[in-house]
Amino acid sequence: MEFTIDEIALLLDGSVEGDGSKKINRLDKIQEGKDGSVGFLSNLKYEKHLYDTDCSAIIVSADFKPQKPFKTTLIRVEDPYSGFTKLLETYAKMVKPEISGIEEPNFFHQSSSIGSNCYRGAFSYVGKNCSIGENVKIYPQVYIGDEVTIGNNCTFYPGVKIYGGTVIGNDCEVHAGSILGSDGFGFAPQADGSYKNVPQLGNVVLEDRVSIGANTTIDCATMGSTYISKGVKIDNQVQIAHNVRLGEHTVIASQAGISGSTTVGKNCVFAGKAGIVGHIQIADNTTVGANTGIVKSITEPGKTFFGYIGFEIKAFLKSYSIFRKLPLLDNKLRELEKKL
Amino acid sequence: MEFTIDEIALLLDGSVEGDGSKKINRLDKIQEGKDGSVGFLSNLKYEKHLYDTDCSAIIVSADFKPQKPFKTTLIRVEDPYSGFTKLLETYAKMVKPEISGIEEPNFFHQSSSIGSNCYRGAFSYVGKNCSIGENVKIYPQVYIGDEVTIGNNCTFYPGVKIYGGTVIGNDCEVHAGSILGSDGFGFAPQADGSYKNVPQLGNVVLEDRVSIGANTTIDCATMGSTYISKGVKIDNQVQIAHNVRLGEHTVIASQAGISGSTTVGKNCVFAGKAGIVGHIQIADNTTVGANTGIVKSITEPGKTFFGYIGFEIKAFLKSYSIFRKLPLLDNKLRELEKKL
Amino acid sequence: MEFTIDEIALLLDGSVEGDGSKKINRLDKIQEGKDGSVGFLSNLKYEKHLYDTDCSAIIVSADFKPQKPFKTTLIRVEDPYSGFTKLLETYAKMVKPEISGIEEPNFFHQSSSIGSNCYRGAFSYVGKNCSIGENVKIYPQVYIGDEVTIGNNCTFYPGVKIYGGTVIGNDCEVHAGSILGSDGFGFAPQADGSYKNVPQLGNVVLEDRVSIGANTTIDCATMGSTYISKGVKIDNQVQIAHNVRLGEHTVIASQAGISGSTTVGKNCVFAGKAGIVGHIQIADNTTVGANTGIVKSITEPGKTFFGYIGFEIKAFLKSYSIFRKLPLLDNKLRELEKKL
Repeated sequence: MEFTIDEIALLLDGSVEGDGSKKINRLDKIQEGKDGSVGFLSNLKYEKHLYDTDCSAIIVSADFKPQKPFKTTLIRVEDPYSGFTKLLETYAKMVKPEISGIEEPNFFHQSSSIGSNCYRGAFSYVGKNCSIGENVKIYPQVYIGDEVTIGNNCTFYPGVKIYGGTVIGNDCEVHAGSILGSDGFGFAPQADGSYKNVPQLGNVVLEDRVSIGANTTIDCATMGSTYISKGVKIDNQVQIAHNVRLGEHTVIASQAGISGSTTVGKNCVFAGKAGIVGHIQIADNTTVGANTGIVKSITEPGKTFFGYIGFEIKAFLKSYSIFRKLPLLDNKLRELEKKL
Repeated sequence: MEFTIDEIALLLDGSVEGDGSKKINRLDKIQEGKDGSVGFLSNLKYEKHLYDTDCSAIIVSADFKPQKPFKTTLIRVEDPYSGFTKLLETYAKMVKPEISGIEEPNFFHQSSSIGSNCYRGAFSYVGKNCSIGENVKIYPQVYIGDEVTIGNNCTFYPGVKIYGGTVIGNDCEVHAGSILGSDGFGFAPQADGSYKNVPQLGNVVLEDRVSIGANTTIDCATMGSTYISKGVKIDNQVQIAHNVRLGEHTVIASQAGISGSTTVGKNCVFAGKAGIVGHIQIADNTTVGANTGIVKSITEPGKTFFGYIGFEIKAFLKSYSIFRKLPLLDNKLRELEKKL
Repeated sequence: MEFTIDEIALLLDGSVEGDGSKKINRLDKIQEGKDGSVGFLSNLKYEKHLYDTDCSAIIVSADFKPQKPFKTTLIRVEDPYSGFTKLLETYAKMVKPEISGIEEPNFFHQSSSIGSNCYRGAFSYVGKNCSIGENVKIYPQVYIGDEVTIGNNCTFYPGVKIYGGTVIGNDCEVHAGSILGSDGFGFAPQADGSYKNVPQLGNVVLEDRVSIGANTTIDCATMGSTYISKGVKIDNQVQIAHNVRLGEHTVIASQAGISGSTTVGKNCVFAGKAGIVGHIQIADNTTVGANTGIVKSITEPGKTFFGYIGFEIKAFLKSYSIFRKLPLLDNKLRELEKKL
């Protein structure tokens, strides 16, 4: 990539403040850039870096008011983060050219169909009666079982395993090592203390624009479907159990887990290592903090929970701040007892 | 599948209350069923759904007494959950026909042997001197290293990796992406602050009827065996470290982890994200709650533990309920101090 | 393997106390050994086993003073654990012979190069323009994307996936199912509540002597590199997010997670399930306890943290011990209130 600052401003519908003729050939963080880099300033926590950045240009907000002199060139846009993202996308298309074609050997059952402009990597496997759309990228060592339906513009990175019967919409991506459709964890206790496997007959459904990270697992439903609505974003090493339903645009960070038959609303955010018990409902716009346990249904939308057994975040932090000084409280109480 | 309600009752050794001639073609949850569905009612928490279910038939307990009128047909059996499971199994055999045969290309070392009625998927790998029983299903992209022994009726789903020297009994299943026999985490600290890898020379042993979920990891022993006894059920993304021993019919839910050289008794239950330190013993019939840490041996069988550093569950919940109102306690204490 | 005790003492530069002519053919734990086994005693917690061990020989410290009579032969060395490790290494070379050669079918792009004495297992994949050193072992079903650089003496166990652009030094090992270079979890919120994927253009860099366990995930940087310094040891199911930097000889146990853009110093130790938020700095020689959350930068080196929101370990344990008796405190407080 090589653009001038003026060309970038044109792409982003922004205005240049400083020398627009300089050449840009890298995207960098504001604090890490060099001559030839373009960075951005969105979160004002990072403003101090503007005044000593080595980036040749920084994308800032149209109404940003600098507090000190600086030497870089500004590109003013409406939303600096979106602007930078757009630039990243343009750059990504140039440096990560789209892959297509068929590598041998691969296994593709004759009863299955696939659209145009697809990639099927070496050692990939597609079972019986699958229907796969256009512009789908199946990287090496991916497994797609029987009777799987996949829309257009999906990407499955190396080693993804998709069990039979899974249904996937358009514009989905699944990163390496993730598993869709493994058996739900269902066992019937027997009189002798042993367990009998309960057959898991359902499937996994992904609507459009679902992104899934690496080494995540989504179990099939016992019956019916484990259901991931459109726009859901799931990070690495997340566990979604059988019969879970996730609402639109819900985001789940790494190592979180959602137990069986729980229904999650729209636009929720689960931080890393959050854990949700089974058979509950979570209202829309709920935020669950890192390593937080949710053990009963959340009915009021828009609340934020935190804690070992999560409750309202401010209340938890207040309690935890007193937990830290419990030895002090304990001493005070002893002294009061003595006095009486 | 299409049965009449009468035929299902016959299969389950139950009795029909209502119209037994209706056709059934699906299994469903009581709250999700439609005309043509059979559901079940075991946990009476779900009883309310009986009175407005659209299922054509519901399997209930022989002694169930309805509180209100309903329109569905009842199939009365001794244990509704077991009955439904039996029905699921019958159905599963019909809709998930058994797979067998050999897909090409695959790698099977000439020094290894395998019994009859097996499946070896494309891109599966079997190393040297393996002994594999009858009716074993090796899905695509499975790796089985050298000197591995496997009994009869085992299933290895796509992408399972089994390191050399592993020993597996009969009737085991391992879901996609799980790893058996990776190196234990052993490093010898050196004087200069670096670490030296300690060779891991042991193996993993699975007795009969062990079930393992997706993307779980079980490390080999440093010496000897990491040992999983018969009937153990392990969920997705569980970590079992080197030299752990799990007793019969112990159940471990998703994202739990057991550290090195810990010995777990029989019929224990570990909930999701439970974490057990190394080098301890856990008594039989111990229950460990979700995200609970166990940091020392548990010698008395049959107890339930919960909490960040787990202790007896009722005591923990009592303490936690007071933790929630610590700001109140803190205020009270201040007021008492003022008064004195 | 079959050595005499005298031969082992010679190998370890140690001295024999007892019958040095006995034959040794196994390495075992002190409490598990049999006739013909050699064990070791380093942690004196295990001293009691010395007095009834069935091992034919035990490696002990040069200055160890037994408290009771025993029947085994002692091999006295400077550091028993290092001595035993050296013995394990010698044994390992004998029982785990080095693998090399090429198994078919595999995929190796003609534009890539690889050094001598390498192993390329069946169904392994090496993309375009890769440069791979000598003595590298690529097990079956490994994926190595385009433009990957790998030094000498590295081992990639079955099913490892390495995204394009990754850079790996010498003497590294990555266990089965681990993923290097998957996309960082970056999404730009849109006005309508949906999210747009932010392209992830950076890579992962591993310096020399990095060890990575099974089913671990290390995301690529958004820009620049996620950077793992020399000698870092990472266990199974660890999550390292985009743009994290780990200092030399830092050790991370199973199921820990480090969020995006956090920088970790040298010689840190993170216990199992530890969770570190993003965008912070962790000083050198920091120890983070099991399941401990770190939510802000740690500036002072050499401290140990523990707790749900971690603080100094002794203070946490003190507070937690009072947490356990909170019901008692609550009662005392009520009584005091009554009295006043």
